[in-house]
Order: sequence, then structure tokens, then C-alpha cells
Amino acid sequence: MSETLEARRRRLLGPNVRLFYDHPVHVVRGQGCRVWDAEGREYIDCYNNVPHVGHAHPRVVEAIARQAATLNTHTRYLHEGILDYVERLVGLMGPQITCAIMVCTGSEANDVALRMAQAVTGKVGIIATDHTYHGNTSAVSQLSTTMPPIGGTLSHVAHVPAPDAIAGFDPQAFAREVEAACARLEALGHGVSGIILDPFFVNEGFPDLPPGALDPALAVVRAHGGVVIADEVQPGFGRLGRWFWGHERAGIAPDIVTMGKPMGNGHPVAAVATGEAIMAAFRGAFRYFNTFGGNPVSCAAAMAVLDVLHDEDLPARAAVTGEHLRAGLSEMAARRGILDVRGQGLATGAELESRARADRVVNAMRERGVLMGANGIRYSVLKIRPPLAFGVAEADRVLEILDEVLADA
Amino acid sequence: MSETLEARRRRLLGPNVRLFYDHPVHVVRGQGCRVWDAEGREYIDCYNNVPHVGHAHPRVVEAIARQAATLNTHTRYLHEGILDYVERLVGLMGPQITCAIMVCTGSEANDVALRMAQAVTGKVGIIATDHTYHGNTSAVSQLSTTMPPIGGTLSHVAHVPAPDAIAGFDPQAFAREVEAACARLEALGHGVSGIILDPFFVNEGFPDLPPGALDPALAVVRAHGGVVIADEVQPGFGRLGRWFWGHERAGIAPDIVTMGKPMGNGHPVAAVATGEAIMAAFRGAFRYFNTFGGNPVSCAAAMAVLDVLHDEDLPARAAVTGEHLRAGLSEMAARRGILDVRGQGLATGAELESRARADRVVNAMRERGVLMGANGIRYSVLKIRPPLAFGVAEADRVLEILDEVLADA
Repeated sequence: MSETLEARRRRLLGPNVRLFYDHPVHVVRGQGCRVWDAEGREYIDCYNNVPHVGHAHPRVVEAIARQAATLNTHTRYLHEGILDYVERLVGLMGPQITCAIMVCTGSEANDVALRMAQAVTGKVGIIATDHTYHGNTSAVSQLSTTMPPIGGTLSHVAHVPAPDAIAGFDPQAFAREVEAACARLEALGHGVSGIILDPFFVNEGFPDLPPGALDPALAVVRAHGGVVIADEVQPGFGRLGRWFWGHERAGIAPDIVTMGKPMGNGHPVAAVATGEAIMAAFRGAFRYFNTFGGNPVSCAAAMAVLDVLHDEDLPARAAVTGEHLRAGLSEMAARRGILDVRGQGLATGAELESRARADRVVNAMRERGVLMGANGIRYSVLKIRPPLAFGVAEADRVLEILDEVLADA
Repeated sequence: MSETLEARRRRLLGPNVRLFYDHPVHVVRGQGCRVWDAEGREYIDCYNNVPHVGHAHPRVVEAIARQAATLNTHTRYLHEGILDYVERLVGLMGPQITCAIMVCTGSEANDVALRMAQAVTGKVGIIATDHTYHGNTSAVSQLSTTMPPIGGTLSHVAHVPAPDAIAGFDPQAFAREVEAACARLEALGHGVSGIILDPFFVNEGFPDLPPGALDPALAVVRAHGGVVIADEVQPGFGRLGRWFWGHERAGIAPDIVTMGKPMGNGHPVAAVATGEAIMAAFRGAFRYFNTFGGNPVSCAAAMAVLDVLHDEDLPARAAVTGEHLRAGLSEMAARRGILDVRGQGLATGAELESRARADRVVNAMRERGVLMGANGIRYSVLKIRPPLAFGVAEADRVLEILDEVLADA
């Protein structure tokens, strides 16, 4: 009897490596906002934010292939690819952001960002929410509360309660939590290097805070000498429609911005951007070199993504499609037991009453040919976050199927 | 007056970002073991180990382009690309290595390897040499001695003196240093999780230890309950000619093997391989997921590298070319002030009497169209480490130019 694909995976990748869905999908091909499995079945992809401008976008593929056939090397030589890209990237942010380090993953970007905050403040204490995820390096995974590391949780991380869309968000109460976290870090002798936040709180379940809601808390961090790190790995690059960045939507001017997943449409490229003073402090305090970071192929992929976002007007389309999707969700909400519909652009959350129901819906949708996930502080929020190639026709189809699934699940 | 490329780089990437050579090279194209600058000047590349099977190798480029045009997604779905690759990769190692985690950079691989050692031992103390470099994450950069991090060097890293090719290497003396390091880690309450070594000691300057030389030291680590991590980022994938891995040459059976740079010929792909028990301990102790790690494009690139290594018989060619190169270096050694010639395959070191002279030679070679570097515990070792496309004709040309340069430098 031949080994199943799942058994082979367990043998070669190890145990406890999660697969999505009770009945995992064996994907073999993708295009736009669709993927196909090994039996030729088509799925509308409402999950993947990495193939940001669409699976296998021909312009990104062509840029990668052309540059890989020309040159792919590190940044100890002069090359215009990285300079052209960084110049364009920082031009999309506020005037406080002028330079960047290119790396390969959002985790690496956040790992560098934490050290930038340390370098400019001379302190190591850092604040994060208690339901966040900023990546997988040893240092960055300390920010998560899911699993205590071997050797114990380090005391330089202070958690504050994640915003809760259902309970409501009080900016002053959040600021008081941040003040208490700063006091704890100072009492322990760590001091406050900064706060790291996804300004759109995707892992926290899309609590869609009004612009300015974070201002009191960030003022507290700055009063303690800390910096503000905006993790744009999930909200960035136009996903939110009218706002190219999550921090733009939040109305804040971060000192450090980290980026990853969507940046190269799947090619492993990421970055951390900041201003001259923080960069100089980091470059002075740490020896840092990333062999693959900012190589010409990664830069070509990332530049092609910016080109496609612009030329296909994807952020504006995301705004329109997202509003259409959320209008449809709101229309069925009372009838189908959706407690709350929220989001911006193509980042949409639909909160159900329990994790169990969200799981049932996600699995039933998969069986009906729609891939989505669930997250949030109670894991009860349907997460609809497709590639930006997703349009109104796909939204209508997803709404139609979801309406049927929610009727039964 | 227009901004120079160097000034633009400083503005966009920050200060103190090192460029190779007093007169940096502006590379625009590569092929095989050659690169060309913006003025069309050709260089023989004796530095780059990342474009392992040759710059812009058409089979690797084609594999990347084909898979990128088909599907590029994460590993929460079933996909055969990662399974086929991991199966082939672990098949190239000893029977104790059966599974792997794919990541994006050697730094990420070593960051995971340190946590694997922690997970299986329940300890955090780790031993490394005092002239090593294993990568750039916060946790991994703690292994380097070059710069004390903000907040101070953590006490869970114990350094042992790097092997010195000139002073000679005494396996028993090295074992005593490792024993002392274990005792320090235990006295501090950290315990011994393991030792991490590049088994070919490339950063330490290629001290070419005979097989078995590390056995006494590794026996000490194991007696203290620790595991052995072989960092194959530099020696791995056939560079050493007769031995596909540095640990094979050293005659050791590591518990964990990390890989990076050459694995995807420049595509950001890396891995950490181990046995079932360590993998299970790691998967049980840490939540780990790497979005880009093991994506189908990275696996296709890495698989193409293995195909090319095999089909073009590159390791065997590296053995022959390397011996030819070292014979030529040895022939000129007395006449040109080379203190020692050493290496295996296409990893060759030529030790000069000082760092200053090595710097002069490296810069003069660059002006004569040959790119190389210098490293070692005194930074006095010429490092000749070309893509494996480097052949006898290139070796002869490099020897000819080096003979002339050494006469003057």
C-alpha cells in the first residue's frame, strides 16, 4: 500500500505540522485569485495575502525570470536594483522614513526592527499585544504569548491586552495599559525601547479602530523614550484600499516600518524602513549583513509588484470590492448569525459567535470551493483576505456560497 | 552635479554598509564563474559561493520561472515539491538525518537549530568558536564575538578558541577547551544544549583538520548531554569535492545540519535537517511556521541545483580543479611569500603574513579582473571560493595574475 501524501509529509517534515482544513487541499496551480487542486478542482482563494497581485502574475514572473537570467548576487557590490526599489518604497511613506534594509522574511524584518529600537534607545524593553504574531525568529517569537520558550519567557517583553472589536476599544484605557507596561519594563531595569504593533491588528481579528485611536498609547511610549514600530507585513501594500499602509489608516507616523509577505508576490523578500538617525544608530551598534537580502532578483520581484499595484489600480479596486463584499456580509448578518462585519479594502473580518462555528464554516467553504481562514482573539472571526486580483464577481460568488454555508453551519 | 551611486547607497541603505574593495565593483551581469561590470569589464569570480553551480545557470533560472508561473504558496496545503526535495536532500546525508524544515536563509536555519538543541535537551547553553559567524538574527548573532549587543552579551554562549591552521590543531587540547566551556555553562545553570560548528571552519580560515580531529571535543559535548549542529552553509553541497558535506569530510555524524547560501543558487532558500526525535521535540516545544519557507518555487530552485550538481558532475570537477589550483599556489608559495596553502575542492585558503598584505592583494586582484576575499582569525588568508563552474582554465588564469600581483604586493 503506498504512503499517503500526508504520511509522507509527516515523515519528512515532522509531526504536528499543521495543514489547513480537516480535508487538506493539494494545490498544484494558481492564477489571479484562483487555485486548482491535483484533481483539477477550482477554488476561489480568499486566504492568501502573499500572492498579493494575484497568483503567478505574469509581470512578476517575467521580472524574476529576466533578472535571474542576468545576475543574482549580494549587496557588497554596487547595484542599482536595490537603490531604485528602496527609493520608490520609502517615497510611499511619510517624510520620517528615508532608508531601508532589505531582508528575506517579515520575521527577519521584525528581528532587525527590535534591534533598531534597542540601538537608538539603548534599552531592550518592548511592548506588544497579547494576541499578536510578528514572526518566527527566536527573538521575535518572544513577542507571542502562545508558547513559553525553553528557558522561560524573557522579562523584556511586556504585553498589553489586544483590542477587541466586540467589547469596544477605549483609547485612554489602552494608553493606561501601555503606561503600566512601560512602568513594569522600567522597574525591571529594561527601560522602554518601543512598541511593536500591526496598525491594523489583523491577527487580533481586524478591530477596525478609527484614525487617531492609537495616539494616546503611542504618546505614552514616546514619553518613555521609546519608538513606534509598525508591522505592515499584513496590512501593507494597498490591501486596505484607500490607505497604502495600515499606519496611514491609523493616522500614525511610525519610526520603523516592517514589511514582508505581499512584497514580492511570494518571492522571499522583506524590508525594514526607518529614518536616518535610527538607521545610523543600528548600523553603529550591530554588524548586520543579509546575504540574500536585497539581491537583484528580489528587488526586481518587489519592483514588479509596485508596478502592477499601480498599473492595475489594485488598491482602488480593493476598496470598491471590499465595500461590496462587506455590504453583502452585512445584508446577511442578522439572518445568518454574523455578529459583526468589519475591515477595509480586501481585509475583511466577519465575527461569529464561537470558534467552533467559525471552524465549521471555514471547512464547509473549502468543500464548496472557497478557501478562507479564521482568526481573532477568540478565533471566531472569518478572515476574508484574498489576492488583490479578487473582484466583484468573485465577491458575489463567495457571498452566495457563504450564505448557503452559514444557513447550515 | 549628480549623486554618485555610493552616495545614493549611503542615503538609502544607511551609513557603514560595507562594500567590497577600495574601488567597489558595479556588477550588472553574471554567467558561470564570470561577472561583468557596468562598463563591460569581465571578472573571474573567485568569491561567490551563493551562485553555486554558476551565475544565472539556465536550468535553475528555468526551474524558477516555470514554477513561479505555475504556483507559489505556503506549506499549509499539500504539495509534492517540498516532499520530493526534502526526501532527496536527507538521502544525501547519514541515516540519523531523516527530515527537515525549510526556511529562507542560513540565519533562519541556525536560529531554528539552536531551538532544536534546546527542545531536545531542555537546556539553553551553546558552544561556538570565538571566530565564527553563523548568521544575523538576534539569537544567532549572539554566537559571534565581533560586537557586544545592546543589553550585553548573554551568558548562555560559551566560546572556545577557533582552530588555527598555522599554530596547529591539537584535538585533545580542543576537547579540554570544550570541557571547560561545558563546565562554565553548567555552573551558570544553563546546561549544555550543544555545539554549533562549521565543520570545515571557513570563517576561521580553512584550517584543514584531518578526519576525526573533532571527535574528542564532540564526545565531550555528548557526554554533557548536548547535540552537535553542523553548519553547512559554507562547506555544503559538494564544494569540498570528494565530500558532499563538510561534516562528511570531518568524519562526524551531526544531530542537526543547517544549510543556506548555495542551496538555491541565489534564490533565498535554506534548511535545517535532523532526525525524528529532535524534530518531534522541536515541533512539540515551539510553534514554528515560515510563510515563504519551502514554497514550491524555492523547492524547484533547490532541486535544480541538485540536478545540475549531479548532471554536470560538479563536485568531482571541484576536486580536480581545486587540487590544480592548490598545486599552483604551492608552487609559487616560497617565491611569493605564501605561508600556507590549504583547502578541499573549491574552498581554498592561502595564508599571507598579515591582514594588510592580504588586503593589498585582494584589491590588486580586483583591479586585474579577479574577485576574491580574505578571512581567517588574523584576516590574512586569501579566500578562493568560486562558483563550481570554475575550471582549470580559470584556475590557470587566476594563478598567473596572482603570481604577478604577489610579486608587487
